Amino acid sequence: MKTMKKYDKLVKNALGRIVPTEINGNDAVAYRGIGKYKPTGRKYAPPIVSCADYPADGNKTLPTLKEALIRAGLKDGMTISTHHHFRNGDLIAEQIFDIAHELGVKDLMWFPSASFECHSPLVKYLEDGTIHHIEGSMNGSLGRFTSDGKMTGLGVLRSHGGRYQAVQDGDVHIDIAVIAAPTADAFGNATGDRGPAACGLLGFALADSQYADKVVVVTDNIVPFPCIPWQIHGNNVDYVVVMDKIGIPEKIVSGTTEITKSPDRLLLAEMSAQFCDEAGIIRDGFSFQAGAGGTALSIGVYFADILRERGMKARFARGGSNKYLVNMLEEGLTDYILDGQTFDLEGVRSMRENPHHINTSPFTSYNYHGKGNFASMVDVAILGATEVDVNFNANVVTHSDGVLLHGIGGWQNCLFSKCTILPIPLFRDRIPVVIDEVTTICGPGELIDVIVTERGIAINPLRIDLIEKMKNSTLPIKTIQELKAEAEAICGVPEKIAFEDEIVAVVKWVDGTVIDSVRKIKK
Amino acid sequence: MKTMKKYDKLVKNALGRIVPTEINGNDAVAYRGIGKYKPTGRKYAPPIVSCADYPADGNKTLPTLKEALIRAGLKDGMTISTHHHFRNGDLIAEQIFDIAHELGVKDLMWFPSASFECHSPLVKYLEDGTIHHIEGSMNGSLGRFTSDGKMTGLGVLRSHGGRYQAVQDGDVHIDIAVIAAPTADAFGNATGDRGPAACGLLGFALADSQYADKVVVVTDNIVPFPCIPWQIHGNNVDYVVVMDKIGIPEKIVSGTTEITKSPDRLLLAEMSAQFCDEAGIIRDGFSFQAGAGGTALSIGVYFADILRERGMKARFARGGSNKYLVNMLEEGLTDYILDGQTFDLEGVRSMRENPHHINTSPFTSYNYHGKGNFASMVDVAILGATEVDVNFNANVVTHSDGVLLHGIGGWQNCLFSKCTILPIPLFRDRIPVVIDEVTTICGPGELIDVIVTERGIAINPLRIDLIEKMKNSTLPIKTIQELKAEAEAICGVPEKIAFEDEIVAVVKWVDGTVIDSVRKIKK
Repeated sequence: MKTMKKYDKLVKNALGRIVPTEINGNDAVAYRGIGKYKPTGRKYAPPIVSCADYPADGNKTLPTLKEALIRAGLKDGMTISTHHHFRNGDLIAEQIFDIAHELGVKDLMWFPSASFECHSPLVKYLEDGTIHHIEGSMNGSLGRFTSDGKMTGLGVLRSHGGRYQAVQDGDVHIDIAVIAAPTADAFGNATGDRGPAACGLLGFALADSQYADKVVVVTDNIVPFPCIPWQIHGNNVDYVVVMDKIGIPEKIVSGTTEITKSPDRLLLAEMSAQFCDEAGIIRDGFSFQAGAGGTALSIGVYFADILRERGMKARFARGGSNKYLVNMLEEGLTDYILDGQTFDLEGVRSMRENPHHINTSPFTSYNYHGKGNFASMVDVAILGATEVDVNFNANVVTHSDGVLLHGIGGWQNCLFSKCTILPIPLFRDRIPVVIDEVTTICGPGELIDVIVTERGIAINPLRIDLIEKMKNSTLPIKTIQELKAEAEAICGVPEKIAFEDEIVAVVKWVDGTVIDSVRKIKK
Repeated sequence: MKTMKKYDKLVKNALGRIVPTEINGNDAVAYRGIGKYKPTGRKYAPPIVSCADYPADGNKTLPTLKEALIRAGLKDGMTISTHHHFRNGDLIAEQIFDIAHELGVKDLMWFPSASFECHSPLVKYLEDGTIHHIEGSMNGSLGRFTSDGKMTGLGVLRSHGGRYQAVQDGDVHIDIAVIAAPTADAFGNATGDRGPAACGLLGFALADSQYADKVVVVTDNIVPFPCIPWQIHGNNVDYVVVMDKIGIPEKIVSGTTEITKSPDRLLLAEMSAQFCDEAGIIRDGFSFQAGAGGTALSIGVYFADILRERGMKARFARGGSNKYLVNMLEEGLTDYILDGQTFDLEGVRSMRENPHHINTSPFTSYNYHGKGNFASMVDVAILGATEVDVNFNANVVTHSDGVLLHGIGGWQNCLFSKCTILPIPLFRDRIPVVIDEVTTICGPGELIDVIVTERGIAINPLRIDLIEKMKNSTLPIKTIQELKAEAEAICGVPEKIAFEDEIVAVVKWVDGTVIDSVRKIKK
């Protein structure tokens, strides 16, 4: 039984936030500033294995997930990873913990790349001790459970890049990774871009396949060797399990991956696009990324209009791919889609068929402990936020009521783009979004360049270049303080959220340091 | 200055060969038998790096190779790796050591994936102490130099899979890898399948890019980010150097990668194909690999004829890809080419254009310290040899005069196929090829199933199944002793090669153990 304290040794980090330096019994480093923490150790070194211990004919199939977990040595205290390629249509995570519960295994750490409402049934395993704690996003019922202070261990939230970094660096050691794959062969080569449950890219499982002690591929579509493409290398896989149905591909399309239909939100996207145009960001060969969330995603439509009108094309669009990006690719408005995650079935089709629709991974795109990554080469990133403060710090994980609501996704990683724009409403349900101090800092203000609201656009004072470029703009350029004042004039000054002192989760920065703590909600 | 002994502590290994257990100052394990050596350690763990130390705009270009080597910290005693994607057309390795010599750097270990006659100029750097020793193939002038006992350190020969294993396991630590890439972007993403010097696949550089401390990409064709495909990930690259010409693509086609025109050799291939047919190996969905060497390569032509005639197709052909395999793919006689190395410009074109022409690597195909690899799933491998003995042991590295002549390539790795056939002439230049005891054991007899010569075919007695299947064959099935006797009846009993006691090189098995020693030639 794990008996360590959830956290210990609080310090104030470089942003003035109080964070623990011991988390679930392990040391942690407080955030020091962007690029200030320099790692000195070595990457995690998995044990050397031998082909002599694997079947020469390449057949690694086992009849059931239960047998695979037993063969993989499932026992108390292990870390079990899963992935969110099916988003709200995942059918595997719950089965794993059903089996663990049936076997009487306790104190597991669940290490998903993200969680969704479909994972609400796992609350019972958090309650009965099957799961000790979650490192990954705590959304919906899991977020509420955590924010209520009910989780035995401390929650740890990481970005997609941070998750790769944590696994690569050995901050998190995965005992068993279970990878749900829409198509696989008996050797364990696996892909997500085809099969009855095709969901697109399996990139979030890359780190797990490379570094986990045991890797189980679960599929409902087994093909003769070789499974092409091999998004996951069978050379990293221990067992393959075939079952009837691994996921519900229709549920790939969730609320955060559909483009908005709201005229108010579309206005934000249109203003953002106009800003990019006037600031000289849109040019032949430029690049952009739109994050999850209906407003951000819709930016591509406006970019496409501008490119088409000017006879220009983007060099690449980073996705979250959806039908709008696919249209751009097929219309010749971008040379490439560099896909990190597939947001709809048109994205899946394009990935499968179009050699210019390129698979990326958290390693190529986001890992901060690499020799560079793609995120900092993107000309403009359009992202969401739940709150922004007058220092341009932004929050994506807690809601205006202080409850854990979202994962970080690639959001932190994308802040390294050459220009980061957050198109957000000035208030939601009469609660201001631009405020004095965000509840949880997920991204430091110095990386956030522009806030676009329906009542005005604020440029980060650090971006003298952008302020200069926009000085004759017809767009309503204001200061962030002006935006805050307008919000308060309409909604009043928002009440402070009532928290307990107890910390229930921490947010890690892209380099593995702790950027902020999330506290228990006061009843 | 390295002053360690070349080797120390001789023991007899499981094949009765005398091998050192200390090589160039490092411990080594004597061969224990197939699958008998079980590694217990962990993979090599590279230092953790940070994006903070790399340019945010992704531009890693430096003006010259010299500057890149200096920035990479080139100094005495380092290990420098290069790759043989251009085979005899490589223009980079020599430049590296010219620079090292100019800078007065000494005692380097050169770790090429293979060497060719074009590397003869490096003899002067072996003589003057710039290069301490070579771990990789020692061919041509380098082989003669080594066999004459002139190299300061001990040569170490590894298979392609063994090279990956050695790097992955930390047996060899690469300080600086220099990867010649026919196309690259400024971030270091690189591919070999396009550009003026297109040579095909860069797979031999994969391990280096993953595990070397510093990685330099050298290209003569720089493209805007992203370079697609990225056979080498820029995320693993430190510096990019652009120069006028990195290699001579026409020289990809060397003597070992052209199909034979000799009627005698073609007969061997035809007999081998007939053997496979009669033994039931050729069936719908079968797979094969033909190794380098004109006889082995020509087998594909005969397989194609049989498949076409029967209306069947292979599931995959492993290459060394050439125009004959490409024809099979384009004619629909195989679902896939799983390419490990591109043998001619038709192979390069197909790799670039055909989504069923798949890039593999020594990791996927050959690494014995993985969770399986592709080699053992191949139905039949057709390979060459310089000598075979009555125990079916075979030699590929030394010539009948005892001089180091060849690298091992993927030969050892391919022995794990379900059936390994060596089509070889019974004698060459009136020197028997089937003999009592091979000069150097590169592959243990128990993995070699069939010897096909112009005067008869010998099946390994261990393969009772094959002997049974062929008992009514019209092919001249004989014992290996009968073949040896026939060779000796024609050529006489060959004289023993005169060696000194001194060991000049060792041959490693796929698991990193030492399978045999190569001795100094007696003048």
